[in-house]
Amino acid sequence: MTAYEIIAKKRDGHTLTTNEIHFFIREFLMGNIKDYQMTAFLMAVYFRGMNFQETLSLTEAYLHSGKRLDLSDIPIPKIDKHSTGGVGDKVSLVLAPLAASLGLLVPMLSGRGLGHTGGTLDKLESIPGFKVSGTLRQFKKQIRAIGVAIYGQTDELVPVDRKIYALRDVTATVDSIPLITASIMSKKLAGGIDGLVLDVKVGNGAVLVERQQAEILARNMLKVGQAFGKKVVVYLTSMEQPLGLKIGNWLEVEESIECLQGRGPDDLTELVVELTAEMLLLAGMVEKKTEARRKCRQALQNGIAFEKMLQLVRAQGGNTQFILHPENYPTASYRKELKATANGYLTGFDTREIGLISVALGAGRMLANDPVDPRAGIILHKKIGDPVKTGDTLLEIHTNKTNVWKSIQQQLRSAVNVSAKPIQPPRLILKRLAS
Amino acid sequence: MTAYEIIAKKRDGHTLTTNEIHFFIREFLMGNIKDYQMTAFLMAVYFRGMNFQETLSLTEAYLHSGKRLDLSDIPIPKIDKHSTGGVGDKVSLVLAPLAASLGLLVPMLSGRGLGHTGGTLDKLESIPGFKVSGTLRQFKKQIRAIGVAIYGQTDELVPVDRKIYALRDVTATVDSIPLITASIMSKKLAGGIDGLVLDVKVGNGAVLVERQQAEILARNMLKVGQAFGKKVVVYLTSMEQPLGLKIGNWLEVEESIECLQGRGPDDLTELVVELTAEMLLLAGMVEKKTEARRKCRQALQNGIAFEKMLQLVRAQGGNTQFILHPENYPTASYRKELKATANGYLTGFDTREIGLISVALGAGRMLANDPVDPRAGIILHKKIGDPVKTGDTLLEIHTNKTNVWKSIQQQLRSAVNVSAKPIQPPRLILKRLAS
Repeated sequence: MTAYEIIAKKRDGHTLTTNEIHFFIREFLMGNIKDYQMTAFLMAVYFRGMNFQETLSLTEAYLHSGKRLDLSDIPIPKIDKHSTGGVGDKVSLVLAPLAASLGLLVPMLSGRGLGHTGGTLDKLESIPGFKVSGTLRQFKKQIRAIGVAIYGQTDELVPVDRKIYALRDVTATVDSIPLITASIMSKKLAGGIDGLVLDVKVGNGAVLVERQQAEILARNMLKVGQAFGKKVVVYLTSMEQPLGLKIGNWLEVEESIECLQGRGPDDLTELVVELTAEMLLLAGMVEKKTEARRKCRQALQNGIAFEKMLQLVRAQGGNTQFILHPENYPTASYRKELKATANGYLTGFDTREIGLISVALGAGRMLANDPVDPRAGIILHKKIGDPVKTGDTLLEIHTNKTNVWKSIQQQLRSAVNVSAKPIQPPRLILKRLAS
Repeated sequence: MTAYEIIAKKRDGHTLTTNEIHFFIREFLMGNIKDYQMTAFLMAVYFRGMNFQETLSLTEAYLHSGKRLDLSDIPIPKIDKHSTGGVGDKVSLVLAPLAASLGLLVPMLSGRGLGHTGGTLDKLESIPGFKVSGTLRQFKKQIRAIGVAIYGQTDELVPVDRKIYALRDVTATVDSIPLITASIMSKKLAGGIDGLVLDVKVGNGAVLVERQQAEILARNMLKVGQAFGKKVVVYLTSMEQPLGLKIGNWLEVEESIECLQGRGPDDLTELVVELTAEMLLLAGMVEKKTEARRKCRQALQNGIAFEKMLQLVRAQGGNTQFILHPENYPTASYRKELKATANGYLTGFDTREIGLISVALGAGRMLANDPVDPRAGIILHKKIGDPVKTGDTLLEIHTNKTNVWKSIQQQLRSAVNVSAKPIQPPRLILKRLAS
């Protein structure tokens, strides 16, 4: 068995054996298979795909590359949630403390923003002092103490994913369903969970734009989870417009605080409640969905979810003063408003473009080591379906970059569609898939 | 313009611009585009192909990566010949001195054997003392002095090809028509030629097994050559059985000497005469093909081609005693014969397998830096169409490896087909393509 033979076999459209896949990943991790062979293999997988058994073997091979977090000595259901990423998707920031406040254990291993999508870690780091790294021991200790921890992926768990992801990112091999499945599922399975709620985004702001592709990914992840004996539920949700009103690192923390205090935007609150309710059901802590939703809404209203957020921020070294008084957080130097030039209705966003513009404002990164500006971002004043009058503010930008307004104003205007005909807002929750 | 964008564009099946292709190759050579990005790109090209304009741009970009040999101050037509490689293909060893003996200049830049095919340089190096490397200055000096030189590809000409070929070789991206075209044509164009005769092999011992693929490659190379203002003729020739009777480095030199003395096997002599005659026509030195063929046959008979071979060997440091007395060359320690077990006719070879077995005997290499044994190889006693009686020797092996016979005997037997029904030998010259 050689790297060459395995690459050629996949290139020619044949099915790889479990042994071949394990060999390829193991030898790559050991340095015997080179980066330039891995990327040729990844491109061949991009073109030829993988069947379910191959995808499962790849996930296993990823999982075997490192340690696994063992939380089995804590007798409380451990449920995580993962989103495939979108614009304004701050669900984790609300859901993690909310679920923990209702008695679940939430061991959450998150990622950073890249390209047009933001990342939970970058958002949390906008809270002064907040640390997202530490040992698995510290992670476990915190979960035991307060029921929730949000850390970055460590090199101890699934080290091969980090190496392969870095290569995929610069070789146009990210958008491959088996590769996405193995990357996400191995990290989640390594995290010592009992169950998992997955939020697969669909639409013009999602990684997978097409509904059909998103559904294939959803079913793949569901089946992989089942094969490992985990309870998994997958939601397909709309990314045809940003989630909530705020995009950008601190801006999204701010909106999450509003949501944790029961005054978040409807779409964000609806999705948080739905996904957290599903976690309670998976854990067997509640029997009916209506009951689960009611508990979630209650926890957002009565302050216990917000209280858990304060514990989480404190536990990870963050300054809670800004959580208690977000109005004291310094704002960006430049704010500009985009005004409507006609009467009508907001009929659509180029959501990906909105994400890329917020990156240009400083809120994200195009390369893995770029710095991000915690204060930069966009605040929407209108969403799809809202009536619009000439002169109304459609959105505002926040940035510390001088002279950026001139160059992005036109770009921004073409990313927001206003038409004379009214339109219904898109449905947020498109589908639920479960075993 | 970024490497990522260019990879993604090719991956998605779009046509790359000349600028994009030049950028990709230039930045790769400068180290700004990494090996792992190049191999993902190569695999995308493998799947998506390239149109003619892209192939031409790639060839140009290769050509621009290094120096070009300028032979324009020598007022004699410079014509080279290139073969896509096969088993027992020793044509260059005969054709180069033959053409030079008839007044042509033959600046030949050759390659080494890899996989099942042999390489001209390895064959020449089996002559004690023969050197295949030197500066472009020495190369030019030798051409001026004796009309012929056969060197290995130097790092001065098309340095990017060597880097990319090494990557293709370990990532299963060799068999791609645009990549083969750019690799061959850039090296030939850099060699300062006026015209080129190409021998594209087709059949079970060729790199491209399928006739259709071989024809596409042939037309591509022809058109690229024309675009650079060169006279090009392409032959499609059969590689359904080894060429001549001898396979292996010194064994092929030996058979070349026989051919240069007018007593070579018919198929080898026919192909050498046809391709050399074409070179004379390309150079405008003869008007009619029949006349050109006659001159070639004459030069093989009357000793002038053999005399040029002696000059070539002497000029490159080789010991001419072994050329004059090949019977003095030491033979391999082990010789075994494969006998026929039934009466009938030899109906076919698994030519690729024959090539691989000769590699196993020591005659070739599977990795670029493996050593080769000059004495190892195979001598065929029968070719397709020959009648065979039980007990007849079908072929003999020569090797210095002990105990190899046992393990390859069965392999060898299945690579030679004997049937009761007679069969016509395959046609050697399948097609001629010219502008």
